[in-house]
Order: sequence, then C-alpha cells, then structure tokens
Amino acid sequence: MKNTGNETVNFNIYRRELDKIELRLAKLLVRKKPESLYEPCSYILNGSGKRIRPFLVLISAKAVGCEFSEVYNAALAVEILHNFTLVHDDIMDNSDKRRGRLTLHKKYDISTAILSGDNLVALAYEYLLKDCHGNANNIISTFTNGVVKVCEGQSLDKEFELRKNVSISDYKLMIYKKTAALIEMCCSIGAQLGNASPKHLKAISDFGKNLGMAFQIQDDMLDITAEESEFGKLIGGDLIEGKKTYLFLRAFEKASGKDKADLLLVVRNKGIKHREIAKYKNIYLRLGILQDAEHEIEKYTKLALKNLSSLPNEDGRVLMNWLANFLINRNK
Amino acid sequence: MKNTGNETVNFNIYRRELDKIELRLAKLLVRKKPESLYEPCSYILNGSGKRIRPFLVLISAKAVGCEFSEVYNAALAVEILHNFTLVHDDIMDNSDKRRGRLTLHKKYDISTAILSGDNLVALAYEYLLKDCHGNANNIISTFTNGVVKVCEGQSLDKEFELRKNVSISDYKLMIYKKTAALIEMCCSIGAQLGNASPKHLKAISDFGKNLGMAFQIQDDMLDITAEESEFGKLIGGDLIEGKKTYLFLRAFEKASGKDKADLLLVVRNKGIKHREIAKYKNIYLRLGILQDAEHEIEKYTKLALKNLSSLPNEDGRVLMNWLANFLINRNK
Repeated sequence: MKNTGNETVNFNIYRRELDKIELRLAKLLVRKKPESLYEPCSYILNGSGKRIRPFLVLISAKAVGCEFSEVYNAALAVEILHNFTLVHDDIMDNSDKRRGRLTLHKKYDISTAILSGDNLVALAYEYLLKDCHGNANNIISTFTNGVVKVCEGQSLDKEFELRKNVSISDYKLMIYKKTAALIEMCCSIGAQLGNASPKHLKAISDFGKNLGMAFQIQDDMLDITAEESEFGKLIGGDLIEGKKTYLFLRAFEKASGKDKADLLLVVRNKGIKHREIAKYKNIYLRLGILQDAEHEIEKYTKLALKNLSSLPNEDGRVLMNWLANFLINRNK
Repeated sequence: MKNTGNETVNFNIYRRELDKIELRLAKLLVRKKPESLYEPCSYILNGSGKRIRPFLVLISAKAVGCEFSEVYNAALAVEILHNFTLVHDDIMDNSDKRRGRLTLHKKYDISTAILSGDNLVALAYEYLLKDCHGNANNIISTFTNGVVKVCEGQSLDKEFELRKNVSISDYKLMIYKKTAALIEMCCSIGAQLGNASPKHLKAISDFGKNLGMAFQIQDDMLDITAEESEFGKLIGGDLIEGKKTYLFLRAFEKASGKDKADLLLVVRNKGIKHREIAKYKNIYLRLGILQDAEHEIEKYTKLALKNLSSLPNEDGRVLMNWLANFLINRNK
C-alpha cells in the first residue's frame, strides 16, 4: 500500500466511531424488562473496551464501497457477541475483574451471568438481522460458524490447561478458534453486507484471520513487556496462572537444562509465585523468545495486509492498514 | 374438528418420528472435535425425552402441506435449542438429575456445561439454516425471538423465587416466556418453512402458544397428581422447593385463615419438608385447586384448537389435534 493516510485522521475516525458505538450500546437496552436480565446485560455492554470488532465490520464494508451507516447494527451485533464470550469465559476462568471492573458473575451471581450471556447471543443475532437484506443465509451462517469456533477454541483452551504436551501448532489452532475466527468473522460479515465479490471477500476475511493471530500473540507478549500502569492488569499474570501462551510454549521448545526444568515446574505446579516472574522473564530474554514472538506477529501482519491492495475503496483500505499497525503497536 | 383420526395410527406416527429424531441426534456430533466439547453435547442430546418440540415443527409444516422431510433439520434445531435451555437451567437450579440421569454440570463440571450450552445454541442455528431456502430472515428472526423470550422467562422465574408477591398474571407471563413462547416458535418455524399464509401462520402459532400454556399448567399439576413410579421425579417436589406454581398461587389467592398462614410459611421458609406434602395436598383439595388447574388447561387447549380447522392439510390437522390430547392426558 502506498498511501497509509494520515495517522491522526485515521485515529480520529476510529475515535469518532468508537464514541458512536459506545452511545448506541449505552442506549441499546434502556428500560427493557425484566430488569434482572437487562440491567446486567447493560452493565457488561457499557464496560468500554477497544471496540475493535465492530470497527472491523465498518471498515470491511467500507473497503468494498459500503457506508458505515449501512452496517451499524451488524457492527453492534459482533460487539454484543464478543461480550457474551467475555461473560461466560470469566465464569469459566473464575476471573474477578475485567477492564478494572468487577466481572458480571462477581457483581451479580453465576446464574445471572450465564443467563445474561445467553441473552446477549440472541440479541447479537437480532441486531445482525436488522442489517441483512435478502442475503441473510450466508451472513447468518458465517456468524454462526464464528460462534461454534469460539466455543471450540474455549474448549481447547480449557483442555490445554490440563494437558502437559501442547505444541505450538496446537496453540495456533486454539487461538485461531478462540480469537482469530471471530475477528475473521467480523471482517467477513462486513464484506458480505457490502456485497463483496468472492475475491474481495477472501482478501478481507484473510485480513481478519491473520490480524487476529497477530493480535493474540501480541496479547501474550504484552503480559511480559507491557507497563503495568498502562496495561490495566498484572504483568506476568499468564505465568502466575500457568497459561500455555506462545511465549511459554516457544520457550519450552527452545530451552534445555536448568531452564527446561524451571519451565516444567510451571506446568507441574500450574503456575508460579509472584516473586518468580523476574526469573521467568529472564529465561524468555535469554532464549530470545520476545524476538520470536515479534517475528510471528510480523509474519501474520504481513499476511493480513497481503491482498488488501486489490480492494476497491481506498478509504477502507487505508483504515484497514492503519488499524493493523495500531493494534500491533499497542501497549495495552 | 370432525375427524380426529385413529389414536393408534397417530401414536405410531409420533413413535416413528421420535425414533428417527433419536437416531439423527445420536449421529449428529459423532467424531467431532474437540471431544471435550462435543462429548458432553452428545450426552445431553442423547438423553431421550418426549421430543415434542421437533414433532411440532414437523406437524406444523405438514398442516400447510409440507413434507416432514423438508423440515427435519429445523426440527432438530428446536430440539438442540431446547436442550441448551435444559443444560443452563440445570446449573441455575442446581439440579443433580434430569430424566433419571446426571445433569451435564454434575457429570462434567459447570464450565463444561456453560460451554456445551453455548455451543448447542450455535448448532441449533446451524441446523435451522440448512432448511431455510431464501426466506431465512423471518425464520431466523422468529427463532431468535424465541431465544430472547426463553431467557427473559428464566430470569422472571429466578426473580419470582425471591419475590413474596407474585400474581397469577405475573405467573402466566413467566410461563409464556419460559415455556410457551418456545413451543409457539416451533409451530411458527414449521409453518413458515411450509410457506404458510399469514392467516394459517397465525392459527398455527396460536396453537403452539396456547398448547404451551396448557402444557406448563399440566406440568405443575402433575407435581401433585402423578404416580411417582411413572412420573420419574418426586411428587410434591415443587412444594419442597417452594416453587410459585399455578397450584400454589391459585391456592394462595383463594385461601384464608389457617390455610393462608400455612401457605405463607412455604414462601417464608422457601419450601416445605417432605413429611408436609400430604398436608399441602389436602389444602389444594379443600380449595378445589386441581379443578381450577384443569379448567385452565381446558381453556388453553380449546384456544389452541380453535382455528385449526382452517388449515389446508388434513393429516397435519389431525396430528395437531391428537398431540394436544396426548399432552393434556399424559401422566408424566
């Protein structure tokens, strides 16, 4: 891509849409009954966030010449769906906090959180349908396939917590299903709603899939490299929980001797103590794991951007390029 | 309706389709990965049951001249969706058993049950889509609306457990949303897939809605009148759990003096002891509550059957009549 546009202009477009999305989400469930269901649903939807997924729907549609306004309900739908996954995942992971606030099941209770999540899935379909005119079958099918994959991915993630032998290729399949497939789906939905040709649909979906992979590996890396004040969560949290992240699995692959033995302890003890974080960070540094992760992120980002130049609308293309760069350079 | 057909013939049609549905459900998820997700999903789908909801899809389509075979995937979809509600409700109600088997979260764990339920929702949409040709928007919208209502109904049900003042009209709204709306949806889906006219669609949907109301009040009544050996659950279980059923709310409305005080104790103590069941059954008998319930069931059944005579296909009409009679005369 020659023209990647003006950073500030693109960021401002993103900010503007982010504000609009927040406003729509805030109004979405006002005064709906029963309150015991819709109040918790509103709580999670109004919990801020980067709102990348709805933005991807907007810019994917734009890239094939469709206006943002034509796909706004679909954009809300993917954000609602994403929030469903957060609510249920937080129960399964027994997380107390999310984006600095109590998780839904901690603020209310597990039953309320299960039910609110269920209701969000249905609301997501409801909003998606509002923007489907005539070609609903393929779009609903793509969306549904995204839900199936995210369930499969979460199931694999829970499986990996218990398994001793997880390869990097197992890991990649898991993050594809748990994270990248939903991002791919956002892009595909936007493109389909914009009546993309099969070639353009593939370019846009591949953008989402590969961006999703880069995004997740970046997320794993931020657990070690982020500044705690900006990150909003504990640095080294994945190590403490014994998560089999890209960093950990790559280190386990490369390590030998004492390092290997130390890494094996993380698996055996299902995590480490807070005071051990520095030790493990040093192992990662010694083995060049952060460079490996950066290399992977770069590889997937390149794949994401590879076929964008064929897309008909320049504004859309520019925003897709900008977003990819914005995401891989984020610090939280 | 003049011709309600031969009882045995109708029952045999139901049995035959039941067997087919069982077979399809048994094969549905074979060898799907990850096993940690699909094995529990299979467990719940293969737990037998009356399979009334898929049968309603079949006969509703038949009533407007459509063959069973054209709507079989949609029939499976509603049964998959129904099983999703069972899995999540059993977690919320902390139930250990269902149809004589361990509930999913007891056999596995809560995380697995949440995730399996989520996956069943997506699978339900997947199967529904297989039978949508062209007219997906309205059908998916009807289906989605059913999911929203069932969540709202479950939320009201949980609310009522904590509320002291629940009226019979509150109760009816709750059972409409929790039970009848999904049965209405099954009928509506079948009719829509059969390209029903608006008038026929309304007659068939109203059949489902009113049958659903009768079915739930019948369910409440069986808690007291059933034979334990046939019922498959404890007689008086609703009283033990302090559930605000039709029987209880109607008794509360009619009672005075000592009876009223005794009924108030059920609310205050959130249920009764096993040895008190006979006492409360006697209150119900004294107040004529079972007759009141029967009267309600009759009222809703009449409403259900009211407009069926306008439907074009006699075989379908006969089966709808037969099923309504079969359900209100069941003993489990």
